[in-house]
Amino acid sequence: MERPNLRDVREAHDRIRPYIHRTPVLTSASINAMVGARALFKCENFQKVGAFKFRGATNAVFSLSDEEANRGVVTHSSGNHAAALALAARNRGISARIVMPSNAPSVKIAAVEGYGGNITFCEPKPLAREEAADLIVKETGSTLVHPSNDLSVITGQGTVALEFIETAGDLDVILTPLGGGGLLSGTALTVRGLGAKIKVVGCEPKNADDAYRSIRAGRILPSVNPDTIADGLRTSLGDNTFSIIRDLVDDIVLVSEEEIVAAMQTIFQRMKIVVEPSSAVPVAAVLFEKIRVTDKNVGIILSGGNVDFSQFFQGMLGNPPPQTPRKNDSNG
Amino acid sequence: MERPNLRDVREAHDRIRPYIHRTPVLTSASINAMVGARALFKCENFQKVGAFKFRGATNAVFSLSDEEANRGVVTHSSGNHAAALALAARNRGISARIVMPSNAPSVKIAAVEGYGGNITFCEPKPLAREEAADLIVKETGSTLVHPSNDLSVITGQGTVALEFIETAGDLDVILTPLGGGGLLSGTALTVRGLGAKIKVVGCEPKNADDAYRSIRAGRILPSVNPDTIADGLRTSLGDNTFSIIRDLVDDIVLVSEEEIVAAMQTIFQRMKIVVEPSSAVPVAAVLFEKIRVTDKNVGIILSGGNVDFSQFFQGMLGNPPPQTPRKNDSNG
Repeated sequence: MERPNLRDVREAHDRIRPYIHRTPVLTSASINAMVGARALFKCENFQKVGAFKFRGATNAVFSLSDEEANRGVVTHSSGNHAAALALAARNRGISARIVMPSNAPSVKIAAVEGYGGNITFCEPKPLAREEAADLIVKETGSTLVHPSNDLSVITGQGTVALEFIETAGDLDVILTPLGGGGLLSGTALTVRGLGAKIKVVGCEPKNADDAYRSIRAGRILPSVNPDTIADGLRTSLGDNTFSIIRDLVDDIVLVSEEEIVAAMQTIFQRMKIVVEPSSAVPVAAVLFEKIRVTDKNVGIILSGGNVDFSQFFQGMLGNPPPQTPRKNDSNG
Repeated sequence: MERPNLRDVREAHDRIRPYIHRTPVLTSASINAMVGARALFKCENFQKVGAFKFRGATNAVFSLSDEEANRGVVTHSSGNHAAALALAARNRGISARIVMPSNAPSVKIAAVEGYGGNITFCEPKPLAREEAADLIVKETGSTLVHPSNDLSVITGQGTVALEFIETAGDLDVILTPLGGGGLLSGTALTVRGLGAKIKVVGCEPKNADDAYRSIRAGRILPSVNPDTIADGLRTSLGDNTFSIIRDLVDDIVLVSEEEIVAAMQTIFQRMKIVVEPSSAVPVAAVLFEKIRVTDKNVGIILSGGNVDFSQFFQGMLGNPPPQTPRKNDSNG
């Protein structure tokens, strides 16, 4: 590949600006007091579709030529990327085919359908989704938009850091969640491209530490049965994200499931905003001192806010929860 | 009483401005689409202590003479007013005595203690709290700050509408939750004082409809065993709030428990912000068409964001919830 650079991120930003929200940067005096630093939160939980994924998907869809676009786009995902691609495609007036496992949670199916996505179900087996998507590409000539390894997705995600640094100015470090690596790669491209002296750190669940291990091993080690509540971070690196992260990212740190939940609870209670578990991963890294931030300006990307609260709200009316909250499917 | 007016609200605003947050006004395209109107949300869930109550408590505390202040303040509440008064008193460097029932939830006790409040426990009986607070007033000469009927509390709460109208401009209607009536009274004072053609509507749970019944009866009918999840709205009107609401408020509408929960869930899912059940009551009134708002500019005050999520987060780690969520004590 030819590695994208800051110019590509800036072009992506110009391309997607009419469709995305410029999300706010929030602070919390009480969290600052807890961590002994100045924490700034870039709130992609307020992004359309409820996650930064809408940036990359929009950039991918609007980067296509008219001829390509008319054949549609396809992806395999049951998470935020699926909904994001569906809405991006609708905004361009083209079709989006989304391959999902037949046992995907109904709330995720409804989200994709709500944005006009055209769902193809496949068997709930490891490779079935990729195979089904490849088959659609062959049969229809549509363009596969990978959730994290696609270069136009990566540069689209890089626009988060671009806005963040424009707004927040003098950051010492930026932390992002790390799953497939699209957000972290885009962030690193932007920060390094700006020549900014900002440390870039990826934050990964201990229970899905494939990127941490891959970078240390010098080759991609796929995620094996990742068992984390951070459902957006169960996927593995691809060749593009692996190489960008290897070359441009300063560090990868790991947090436990208990730390993720405690961080998520802290955000809810102190900031009164809804974030999904993946967003809590870099917050946990700071709260539980996986990285030294004392007296620093710490930028944290809150990646999304899609949480299934149905059982919580049923419980409020006195209906006993039918089961403990399900650990959702991979976020693709 | 001599009824307070807009000048008092403006003075309150000048008095409390150094201590409060000027909270944002947010909108949601998807909620606008759902209700066929332009809904604007004044987000007091982002206020200090997580609720508008901090405005009234701060105004009450900073309205005292030095001599009065040195004898401290006292209130009976286990909810947001208790925490708000504790922090307001700490900001002035005086003592706050909070009377709470001996069976108050530990999370609420911890909140008050966290702000430096001095808790006196009383028996969990209907009149025990008022009696205990009166006794403290007699013994110490401290000032009782009633959660809703105190005039300086009412004018403090009126500052929400003052900021809201400054920011949002052309509102057709303002809806507030209605419990003890402090927020609704303050809102009505501000709107009528500005001479604005804005309809003022109080929104009350059907299961705690004492204000609705009181206004129709022409006298205060106390709340009897209010059984609502909107824990901030279980209290009854006082003489001041009754008379202001009777004279200056356009309408009171009622919503069911199911409607409150559905509205709360809508706010979480669509706006990605945390609101407590009381805040969802006016949202429910709009979503479930208790008032016609088609094509109007609808101002909704989201009163607070203090929700006990401990069981939800425990459940995320696979710990079964020990019981269905408790219906909390009155919010005073």
